[in-house]
Amino acid sequence: MPVDTIDRLASELEAETAQVSADVDSFFSELLAPSGDSRDRLFEAMRHGAIGGGKRLRPLLTTAASRLFAINPERALRVGCAIEAIHVYSLIHDDLPCMDDADLRRGKPAVHKAFGEAEAVLAGDSLHALAFEILAHPATHDDPWVRSDLLLELARAVGPAGMAGGQMMDLVAEGQELDLPAITRLQQLKTGALIEYAIEAACIMVKLPADARTPYRGYARNIGLAFQIADDLIDHSGDEAAAGKRTGKDAHAGKATFVSLLGEERARQQASFLVAQAIEHLASHGSEADLLRSIARFAIERDH
Amino acid sequence: MPVDTIDRLASELEAETAQVSADVDSFFSELLAPSGDSRDRLFEAMRHGAIGGGKRLRPLLTTAASRLFAINPERALRVGCAIEAIHVYSLIHDDLPCMDDADLRRGKPAVHKAFGEAEAVLAGDSLHALAFEILAHPATHDDPWVRSDLLLELARAVGPAGMAGGQMMDLVAEGQELDLPAITRLQQLKTGALIEYAIEAACIMVKLPADARTPYRGYARNIGLAFQIADDLIDHSGDEAAAGKRTGKDAHAGKATFVSLLGEERARQQASFLVAQAIEHLASHGSEADLLRSIARFAIERDH
Repeated sequence: MPVDTIDRLASELEAETAQVSADVDSFFSELLAPSGDSRDRLFEAMRHGAIGGGKRLRPLLTTAASRLFAINPERALRVGCAIEAIHVYSLIHDDLPCMDDADLRRGKPAVHKAFGEAEAVLAGDSLHALAFEILAHPATHDDPWVRSDLLLELARAVGPAGMAGGQMMDLVAEGQELDLPAITRLQQLKTGALIEYAIEAACIMVKLPADARTPYRGYARNIGLAFQIADDLIDHSGDEAAAGKRTGKDAHAGKATFVSLLGEERARQQASFLVAQAIEHLASHGSEADLLRSIARFAIERDH
Repeated sequence: MPVDTIDRLASELEAETAQVSADVDSFFSELLAPSGDSRDRLFEAMRHGAIGGGKRLRPLLTTAASRLFAINPERALRVGCAIEAIHVYSLIHDDLPCMDDADLRRGKPAVHKAFGEAEAVLAGDSLHALAFEILAHPATHDDPWVRSDLLLELARAVGPAGMAGGQMMDLVAEGQELDLPAITRLQQLKTGALIEYAIEAACIMVKLPADARTPYRGYARNIGLAFQIADDLIDHSGDEAAAGKRTGKDAHAGKATFVSLLGEERARQQASFLVAQAIEHLASHGSEADLLRSIARFAIERDH
């Protein structure tokens, strides 16, 4: 691909990322407005966690996938924000002293540092419930079958068969010698399930038949793993400014990662291979899939 | 009412409570079966919290309300179990050291005592997601509008406008002098919203028009407050065997309760008045409402 094409795609992705980030911030600002009573502290803690941080990879993926199917952008944004609410809740709970005990997140103090532990538990729980409230609202889709399906699949991606299950695997794995299949399975649940849902949600919104979803699921699966390897590489590199959080924690905790198992060089190669696979899944599409291709090429490099 | 009628109703309620408790336990046993991988610890912690405890007031209310409208009992049980999953998640998180720091729940060690704090956070989060998964599944209702509505209203009852909001009010209230309206509002969110949902869910399942729901909402509102007063009386009485948890915590934490504000005698009177009001809301019904009436009369006395 010519260098000027790469430059153009990169700057388009940057513009899209900025737009989605602004849209997500504005959505949460409205949704989490002060209540004017003693719950204000809860809304403040939720805003602290949810507004102004991260690359918004998940809403960006839903937005990009919705381009393929000409989905109404406002509806795609609602779904993207529901997914981001889940992601933020998981970060807030993950950062708790009894979990990863992280004091820094997205370049700011973690919610429990800024507001207290009880507030962090409640802010996470509240964002968890809000995600389902956003999806269940008729403004998300006028077909109740679609809403019900969006809700069912999100619940599966978030619960013990998905994200929470992966977090438990991660907890149990501390000090254990995991091999590559075990790490892949752990990460597929812990971070992959929600990333895959960000794409699946667009398929649900256009009621794509199950067999037609295969390429998009393949794309999402590859992206999810590539993203995790990129995250492991950032943690390994120790670049805390880029990460917006403390790095080197995995090595410190004796946790196996893709980098500790493969080494830095092979981990990079594996991520590139996954990106190429992800893009290959979109081969039947023209320029309407460019944003998804660009996310595969660039966005996984720096998200956290 | 003749004494033998009271005895008959009380023993019918006892039998119903035993049946619902057995059904809920069996539902959770199946749903939370060991996964056969490193998530087993998560499922074990969830089973510890969810199986074999409490009077199952919320599923009992949904079952009783479903009698009024001839709702399929299996569907009513699924909805009741979703509500109970939310209730159990809230107890698990409430008991955390950073929240109420309670070591005993339903006569057993709290989940964080038996499994660890991180496990308790994840078990609560997982039950939270599972509740939505249960409701979103087509087995809960064949009409997707009903499923979507069940989910929307549950999310509202659980999030910052409901239970989680009430928990934050409770947190902020420590050491403050709350008056009766403030305590009523706090409890209406913290415990009332989910109890009201247990009745509202039955109305949603039969697509009752909004204006026809008024008496059932009135019943639920009254029951919710009466239940909270009963709970405050148990906490005040110090009967830990009856409560299945440590008592006297509210007084120790300097928290205002209905009992601290009204005194024991007036609190009892207020609870009786609320029960009479609740029963009055069912005046248009015949014997199909007997179970709801019995719950109002008896079940609030000893639930925890």
